[in-house]
Amino acid sequence: MNTLLDETHDPGLQSWVHTAQDPDTDFPLQNLPYGRFKRKGVDEPLRIGVAIGDQVLDLRLAASVMKWPAALGPAIASLAAGELKPLMAQTVAHRRLMRSTLSQALRLDSLEQAALGPCLVPMTMVDMRVPCEVGDYTDFYTGIHHATTVGKLFRPDNPLLPNYKWVPIGYHGRASSLCISGQPVRRPCGQLKGDDPTPVFAPTRRLDHELELAAYIGPGNALGEPVGMADAEDHLFGFSLLNDWSARDVQAWEYQPLGPFLSKSFASTLSPWIVTQEALAPFRQPFSRPPGDPQPLPYLDSDNNRKQGALNIQLEVWLQTQMMRENDQAATRLMQSNACDAYWTWAQLLTHHTSNGCNLRPGDVFGSGTLSGPQADQGGSMLELTSGGQRPITLPNGETRTFLLDGDTLSLRGHASAAGARPIGFGECSATVVPAR
Amino acid sequence: MNTLLDETHDPGLQSWVHTAQDPDTDFPLQNLPYGRFKRKGVDEPLRIGVAIGDQVLDLRLAASVMKWPAALGPAIASLAAGELKPLMAQTVAHRRLMRSTLSQALRLDSLEQAALGPCLVPMTMVDMRVPCEVGDYTDFYTGIHHATTVGKLFRPDNPLLPNYKWVPIGYHGRASSLCISGQPVRRPCGQLKGDDPTPVFAPTRRLDHELELAAYIGPGNALGEPVGMADAEDHLFGFSLLNDWSARDVQAWEYQPLGPFLSKSFASTLSPWIVTQEALAPFRQPFSRPPGDPQPLPYLDSDNNRKQGALNIQLEVWLQTQMMRENDQAATRLMQSNACDAYWTWAQLLTHHTSNGCNLRPGDVFGSGTLSGPQADQGGSMLELTSGGQRPITLPNGETRTFLLDGDTLSLRGHASAAGARPIGFGECSATVVPAR
Repeated sequence: MNTLLDETHDPGLQSWVHTAQDPDTDFPLQNLPYGRFKRKGVDEPLRIGVAIGDQVLDLRLAASVMKWPAALGPAIASLAAGELKPLMAQTVAHRRLMRSTLSQALRLDSLEQAALGPCLVPMTMVDMRVPCEVGDYTDFYTGIHHATTVGKLFRPDNPLLPNYKWVPIGYHGRASSLCISGQPVRRPCGQLKGDDPTPVFAPTRRLDHELELAAYIGPGNALGEPVGMADAEDHLFGFSLLNDWSARDVQAWEYQPLGPFLSKSFASTLSPWIVTQEALAPFRQPFSRPPGDPQPLPYLDSDNNRKQGALNIQLEVWLQTQMMRENDQAATRLMQSNACDAYWTWAQLLTHHTSNGCNLRPGDVFGSGTLSGPQADQGGSMLELTSGGQRPITLPNGETRTFLLDGDTLSLRGHASAAGARPIGFGECSATVVPAR
Repeated sequence: MNTLLDETHDPGLQSWVHTAQDPDTDFPLQNLPYGRFKRKGVDEPLRIGVAIGDQVLDLRLAASVMKWPAALGPAIASLAAGELKPLMAQTVAHRRLMRSTLSQALRLDSLEQAALGPCLVPMTMVDMRVPCEVGDYTDFYTGIHHATTVGKLFRPDNPLLPNYKWVPIGYHGRASSLCISGQPVRRPCGQLKGDDPTPVFAPTRRLDHELELAAYIGPGNALGEPVGMADAEDHLFGFSLLNDWSARDVQAWEYQPLGPFLSKSFASTLSPWIVTQEALAPFRQPFSRPPGDPQPLPYLDSDNNRKQGALNIQLEVWLQTQMMRENDQAATRLMQSNACDAYWTWAQLLTHHTSNGCNLRPGDVFGSGTLSGPQADQGGSMLELTSGGQRPITLPNGETRTFLLDGDTLSLRGHASAAGARPIGFGECSATVVPAR
């Protein structure tokens, strides 16, 4: 029995926002993700909203028109002021109370319908923003199939480094250049090193995407006070999609010995809606290691993690080229994979990150690393799908690609489904490549 | 002729704060660094202050008791509110006006003495804090002697990697665990890998310091808009000392392939006073490459950089062990070096960092990397001074050290001097190691 489930996960629940019942919507009543927006064409402070069907519930307005449980007062006040972090900093119990309150208010039989109706804004009328000011962004490397395939390109006989199955590998990313879905991504310049002894400074010729999930940190911890596995999940506020754009030629030349730097820091695109840890409760599943692999060290192990540490989230990458757009051809799917193939759970990443005493703060972001599947056609980057640029892929309209070209629109999608649960989605994480300056 | 000099650099200037004339003070009237503090024993919002002799000019108080140029109004208001970033975001001309205003107000003949006298707080009565909320912290690797010595430990025949003389190597660091001088540093735990096939999770046995300078970013740039060499120096607000603590055994096991992570993120200690770019004008010097080394690529080159891109700052590392403290023995100097040995200038680091379009924000921090000198006894870390822990050093009281032990107090100091200039200093960057949890 999944003890994380409560009445908000009942697949039979329906909303008075009728588009929440659309079978294709990512945002049924069982989801209720948070995002930050402003209304299109209005110069106004950012607002926090909740996605429901094709609408956004504007919490700046909703805060004052309905009755909220007294315990939620301070969190509601901060949401009304456009700040998500004070809610992130709250306990799991507090977050659950917020979820059940929103769920009840948006249900078909809710007495709040009349009051909340005017608080809805159509999604087509809002511009989304990064949901909070992100203090630190850490990118992990939990996709073992990605690590293996990429490693093979460099070390055919020994693709996985000896530390991989022991240490959740990660590195610090750049927080300032986190972008929101829809923002164009400019092709970066950088040092490229070919056969000539002198590198050149030029636009990258190997622009790539990386299919990742992002986690937003909840309460966090004080410096010097690690978070053990027993408490780790309490510090996971929610998840979105993340495209960790990469310039592979810049990366190859710069990354030794301190890791990727400018090959990554020009942009990382987030999807706008934070699907909460609570919304994902029906999609948890057991976590285990393949036979013969080492078990996690004790500080990264727990019964709960083994029982339900993994997330069953179907992931996809879609590409629409400029030519496809000009010919009104829809995007084509490049691959699909599942987040449950990650070699480490989010709880393990969080515990590992704090195991040296490093402090996490509400709204900090973790990236999962590229979540490729086990098959060759399940690569979460062009680097994998084209064997390092050696084997171009052919698109349905006859175009070919090794890496991404200017005008390409790259989109990530994610959906969770499970028996007895209403499926939920993440919305889209999409950006178009624009030419270098 | 150094065109960056103005009347505030006149070595003959004296202050009515008489300790500013103390020949040993780091903070004469020619320095005027900014810091953030609260008064000891008082529960109050943080304040911005300027160091002068052994006193702090409290700008929360000074803002309202003297006459400031109208152009400084908004910056003074933010300083009075405890926020340094709005000043950092201003132009160089604005920052210079602030400096000359402060210089005049604190001069021996100033009419403001009576008003400002009550705005002084003795340094012994304040607790310093990190000067601003740091958005992103980037650590570079400009110490070529450090890179060479450390490289030799791993690759005796080929110590410097091929990219070193072309790319200013850097990586993203952890902003949340930036600490201020005086905060104890807890020995971190982490995965250690010895000869046994299974790593252990234990307190680090190879705790180390790294002698660095930190730069605070001024105005910064928008995403996608690189800053060329011609403008780079305008974006450097000021400098402090930085100890980038490192757990060498954790680092050795975790760092492939994405670079250092938990071996660094447990703490990085900053000195509290930001010595401004303007205060360092007399200590600029020509920057050049050793004969035979490649010249910087054009995007990292400029006349101004060659003429005065380097900083002549004498750096030192001091150690006082617990036994020394208990026996009232003073700290001993472990080494000295000079910042002008850095292989890249700050302008080059800034231009390189933004060359891919990455945005910098006011108050972001760059670390220089470990600034070791060319001689074996000029290593800026224990790793270098003890040849990777193979050759212990002997301290004056007979104790030996390979890496740092609990109870050790490690202090960095920095001073700039030049003919015809009043020497200035950075204050202290000091922290004591406390045992692992």
